[in-house]
Amino acid sequence: MIASKDSLNSDSQSLFPNSRRVYIQGNLFQDIRVPFREIKLASTKNIKDEWIENEPVRVYDASGPWGDPDLSCEVIKGIPSIRSSWIQKREDVEEYEGREAKPEDDGYLSEKHARTAAAGDAGEGNRFSVFPGLRRESLRARNKGNVSQMHYARKGIITPEMEYIAIRENLGRQAAMTTVHHPGPGNNGVRSHGQRGPSDAMNHRHPGQSWGAQIPDFITPEFVRDEVALGRAIIPSNINHPECEPMIIGRNFLVKINANIGNSAVSSSIEEEVEKMRWSILWGADTVMDLSTGKNIHATREWIIRNSPVPIGTVPIYQALEKVNGKPEDLTWEIFRDTLIEQAEQGVDYFTIHAGVRLAYIPLTARRATGIVSRGGAIMAKWCLSHHRESFLYEHFEDICEIMKTYNVSFSLGDGLRPGSIADANDEAQLAELETMAELAQIAWKYDVQTMIEGPGHVPMHLIKENMDLQLEACKEAPFYTLGPLTTDIAPGYDHITSGIGAAMIGWYGCAMLCYVTPKEHLGLPNREDVKEGVITYKVAAHAADLAKGHPAAQWRDNAVSKARFEFRWEDQFNLSLDPLTAREYHDENLPQSGAKSAHFCSMCGPQFCSMKITEDVRKYAAENGITSEEAITRGMNEKSDEFNREGSDLYLKPS
Amino acid sequence: MIASKDSLNSDSQSLFPNSRRVYIQGNLFQDIRVPFREIKLASTKNIKDEWIENEPVRVYDASGPWGDPDLSCEVIKGIPSIRSSWIQKREDVEEYEGREAKPEDDGYLSEKHARTAAAGDAGEGNRFSVFPGLRRESLRARNKGNVSQMHYARKGIITPEMEYIAIRENLGRQAAMTTVHHPGPGNNGVRSHGQRGPSDAMNHRHPGQSWGAQIPDFITPEFVRDEVALGRAIIPSNINHPECEPMIIGRNFLVKINANIGNSAVSSSIEEEVEKMRWSILWGADTVMDLSTGKNIHATREWIIRNSPVPIGTVPIYQALEKVNGKPEDLTWEIFRDTLIEQAEQGVDYFTIHAGVRLAYIPLTARRATGIVSRGGAIMAKWCLSHHRESFLYEHFEDICEIMKTYNVSFSLGDGLRPGSIADANDEAQLAELETMAELAQIAWKYDVQTMIEGPGHVPMHLIKENMDLQLEACKEAPFYTLGPLTTDIAPGYDHITSGIGAAMIGWYGCAMLCYVTPKEHLGLPNREDVKEGVITYKVAAHAADLAKGHPAAQWRDNAVSKARFEFRWEDQFNLSLDPLTAREYHDENLPQSGAKSAHFCSMCGPQFCSMKITEDVRKYAAENGITSEEAITRGMNEKSDEFNREGSDLYLKPS
Repeated sequence: MIASKDSLNSDSQSLFPNSRRVYIQGNLFQDIRVPFREIKLASTKNIKDEWIENEPVRVYDASGPWGDPDLSCEVIKGIPSIRSSWIQKREDVEEYEGREAKPEDDGYLSEKHARTAAAGDAGEGNRFSVFPGLRRESLRARNKGNVSQMHYARKGIITPEMEYIAIRENLGRQAAMTTVHHPGPGNNGVRSHGQRGPSDAMNHRHPGQSWGAQIPDFITPEFVRDEVALGRAIIPSNINHPECEPMIIGRNFLVKINANIGNSAVSSSIEEEVEKMRWSILWGADTVMDLSTGKNIHATREWIIRNSPVPIGTVPIYQALEKVNGKPEDLTWEIFRDTLIEQAEQGVDYFTIHAGVRLAYIPLTARRATGIVSRGGAIMAKWCLSHHRESFLYEHFEDICEIMKTYNVSFSLGDGLRPGSIADANDEAQLAELETMAELAQIAWKYDVQTMIEGPGHVPMHLIKENMDLQLEACKEAPFYTLGPLTTDIAPGYDHITSGIGAAMIGWYGCAMLCYVTPKEHLGLPNREDVKEGVITYKVAAHAADLAKGHPAAQWRDNAVSKARFEFRWEDQFNLSLDPLTAREYHDENLPQSGAKSAHFCSMCGPQFCSMKITEDVRKYAAENGITSEEAITRGMNEKSDEFNREGSDLYLKPS
Repeated sequence: MIASKDSLNSDSQSLFPNSRRVYIQGNLFQDIRVPFREIKLASTKNIKDEWIENEPVRVYDASGPWGDPDLSCEVIKGIPSIRSSWIQKREDVEEYEGREAKPEDDGYLSEKHARTAAAGDAGEGNRFSVFPGLRRESLRARNKGNVSQMHYARKGIITPEMEYIAIRENLGRQAAMTTVHHPGPGNNGVRSHGQRGPSDAMNHRHPGQSWGAQIPDFITPEFVRDEVALGRAIIPSNINHPECEPMIIGRNFLVKINANIGNSAVSSSIEEEVEKMRWSILWGADTVMDLSTGKNIHATREWIIRNSPVPIGTVPIYQALEKVNGKPEDLTWEIFRDTLIEQAEQGVDYFTIHAGVRLAYIPLTARRATGIVSRGGAIMAKWCLSHHRESFLYEHFEDICEIMKTYNVSFSLGDGLRPGSIADANDEAQLAELETMAELAQIAWKYDVQTMIEGPGHVPMHLIKENMDLQLEACKEAPFYTLGPLTTDIAPGYDHITSGIGAAMIGWYGCAMLCYVTPKEHLGLPNREDVKEGVITYKVAAHAADLAKGHPAAQWRDNAVSKARFEFRWEDQFNLSLDPLTAREYHDENLPQSGAKSAHFCSMCGPQFCSMKITEDVRKYAAENGITSEEAITRGMNEKSDEFNREGSDLYLKPS
């Protein structure tokens, strides 16, 4: 059953207590309203019994209308199109009657087959289910033009999408109005002269070690434009997905995470997948890939896109393969091209295309421990072998670019030869493909098509930086988008953790987006709980990377949690965390009484034996004695030091 | 209720299907029997339909007698004393009537108080519960001598403990007999000339990037001795804990993990804690720290030690504090000393002692975001402030060394000023204490007392290596033992993950032992499931570090999992994993049929659409055509290459 808005509304409200949705308006573009979640905090009682207010903490919020309790939405209608007017105002698109949906788009042989299936033999979950909501005409670039954000960026145009992103990336910090008018292109080092939000918290921050990242103190629309123009970042935002809230993927911005969803031939339904999309963005997924295979691929995608405020990615070869009944050798460029247009018209924001799997590289995988583990890679390898031909994706790459630029679909160049095990990491096949992806990125950029590069997979820790560095160098800083990587193969069932380690590290080293791995990786399809576990693990990894990269606002939230913890503001500690209800539940297992949440102790140590309480006593002691603690100690030490130095020197100089 | 052996037996057997306990005998010492768990694998059917045997995989096994189905043990009796004869043969110990247990050891004011409590007012779980099993006389070094493993090592003596460890660290690989007779001290670069176990799998290994570690291809007893003599590794093994199976903590060995257990004033019971110990070593904890506070500390510890095949660590100041009713200012050197002797006689293998918290450093914490978060550190800080005196632990450090050497108790120098938040990482207070710990390690070494150094805590990724490097340099390579570190503070409820990231990294950089963090960290006491989750997360981190450090045998298990995965040997994939039942359960959620576990597909992709199947087809295709796949491709490429080069060059040179 397709869930009603109500069910989700209550989710969003109850999952994040003491939070409210706030919006920051644009400056260059007045109709921009950038959403944040604001977490309200209790006040702090200091040792003089005065109440000191704690500023609310604003956090990045990817949940779109589903996270706004004031908006009333229904899945069967889809969500509002916030970008339609921006797109229309550019006056470079035209409506046209798009490609007609066909039975084979959903894996059926004929209309009759589809109806039979819908009648019930495939079960409730797999019925042929046309999205009932608003259907728009398709949009495309007028006069074979180019509507990619990179195209605008290179022409020096700041789009509403870019300003939206600038506001979003500053995590709710407001700049003085002047900052957005900073002159000139190419000024990576732009600094804001405006106020910088909660400066107290900021002062604690460690300057991170940026390997390749150069994150300014304050992100301006101009900085966004410049990064996109240089190919260092992408804004995935198909003109046919006006529901999408602009976001950016690039290493000089917050590290993003992707959640994979999708049904398969043996499991799952449209309804479940739509719910997984909404569920994953509630927890913080920045983009969602619909990796559906089997039946109802087109219909599933339609439901997902019409309800998604985040960019949707796909692997079009999966659907193309269904159209030829799962036989890779029957694939043709024409079928693939038709699938690209079908999906571009629906509004897919980025396509994973495995055009780097060249015929010549396939033998390099024959002696691998785990051969080719990418589905797309394996399909293309089989096609190449069957026909003794170079990949049609490689040969038609410029044709693909022409399609991409017409809709502003971004490339995610798929790593079809990624390693499937520690044993195969950074091997010849992987690096050969990387070289080709680098070559293809250059071609895409000739067409101003936004491009990111996919990466592994399975890499032991000591090879992760090498992998990242090779990518940055070869691909001229095109954003890297990796799956994990898993740092060991010995823990199926815990691969969110084996890969969370690698993800955090590669994010620090410069990876722009991390594709999540759930506990079910290698074992089965993730359910709702797995999706949540995967998203939260990857939010941890991405945030750890943001701290290490030195994002100027990242440590704000850490400091707020630490302060709440130190001051025994238990509710604030829960509410500031990635998953408030779980934190509260764990606390309540030992101390369920509501009094315990304002008590100055916790279940770990008991009331008499709490280090934080003792530390507070230390400070209090000093205050009660009318001196700062530093002075107290200094005085104490002076009294003591002569004696101690005498004894101590004696003590430690005698031979043993 | 104290669980019977039966309950655990069935655990061990059913938790690790297709596993059996094997032992490898010593060579220098014939009565050494080193345990391993051996995982039996199915055969592989190659594409010619021939069955090829897969060698069983041996894994390190910390579970002791509890993991051996042929041994019959009962918790109320304790486990066998495998080291008693080794200790006696050295002829340097004497039996003596140890300190008599007193009511206050368990937190009671008098015998009467203890009896009243036992009668039930503290509840079933907290009753005064004397260990009913065998009670031995206490042992100590004869004639105020020194029985530390470091003492033997420095005299050039290879102990049975050292040979045991050498065999254990080679992960079941057998050396030719000659290797253990390798001459001379100080030869870190010892290489084995013997066979090296499953060489096929080994050939895949990546040489790791060792930052500070120099792990030989084969560990010899002499290498163990040398590392201990140099202070780079410790063998925690109190002569009063003969039940303990020797293990080593040092960065040129496998990375170890510690599990914390212990009751507190508001929660838990003796029975639960003994069960947590047994549960944690079943999952792979290498040492266990009993951090009990509140009542029954002595009794709980007795039960744990008598049943523990792994070294037990404690923080003696916790018990000392209970003896003064939780008032730090009432602590004295005499009470602390009495507690050390009490615990040393029971068999505690290492003591965490916060002797680095000096009076002068306390003011350095006053402006911290989270002050002093170590309980031991806070207790000592309060003591120092109350008395305006230097720490009695610091002043009596040599007296403590005298006690430690008498029983071979090892130091774990506690980091009482470790940071409690990202904001406080690597600050002045932490580094000042580190300098003092370095000074204390030098003193301990004068007494040949084995020493490791504790570390944080909370450290963002970019500061972890700095922390590790500072420790190695300052402490002259004494083993580092860290808690995590947590790489962000924003995920209470997921701190096993925030810290697993930091743990893996610092393990790679040279940390010798990782103290686990469970999902309950900061929120409550871990239950059974939390202990398991924490141990497995840390086994992942430690193993990822072993791979990255380049341990020569670490990748064996990864390769075996990958091979099983690639060949669709589902049962083997489950059985080789850290948690077979969870892996199986996740798989079965989608495909519960037993046929699915030999099927060449899985629920992720469905029968028609499996990349591994396609890769197999690629290889099969080549084989069926009577040529190797390399030749097939080469031929195909040659046929194609002229045409492609023509088209391709043309294609990609035209201007866009």
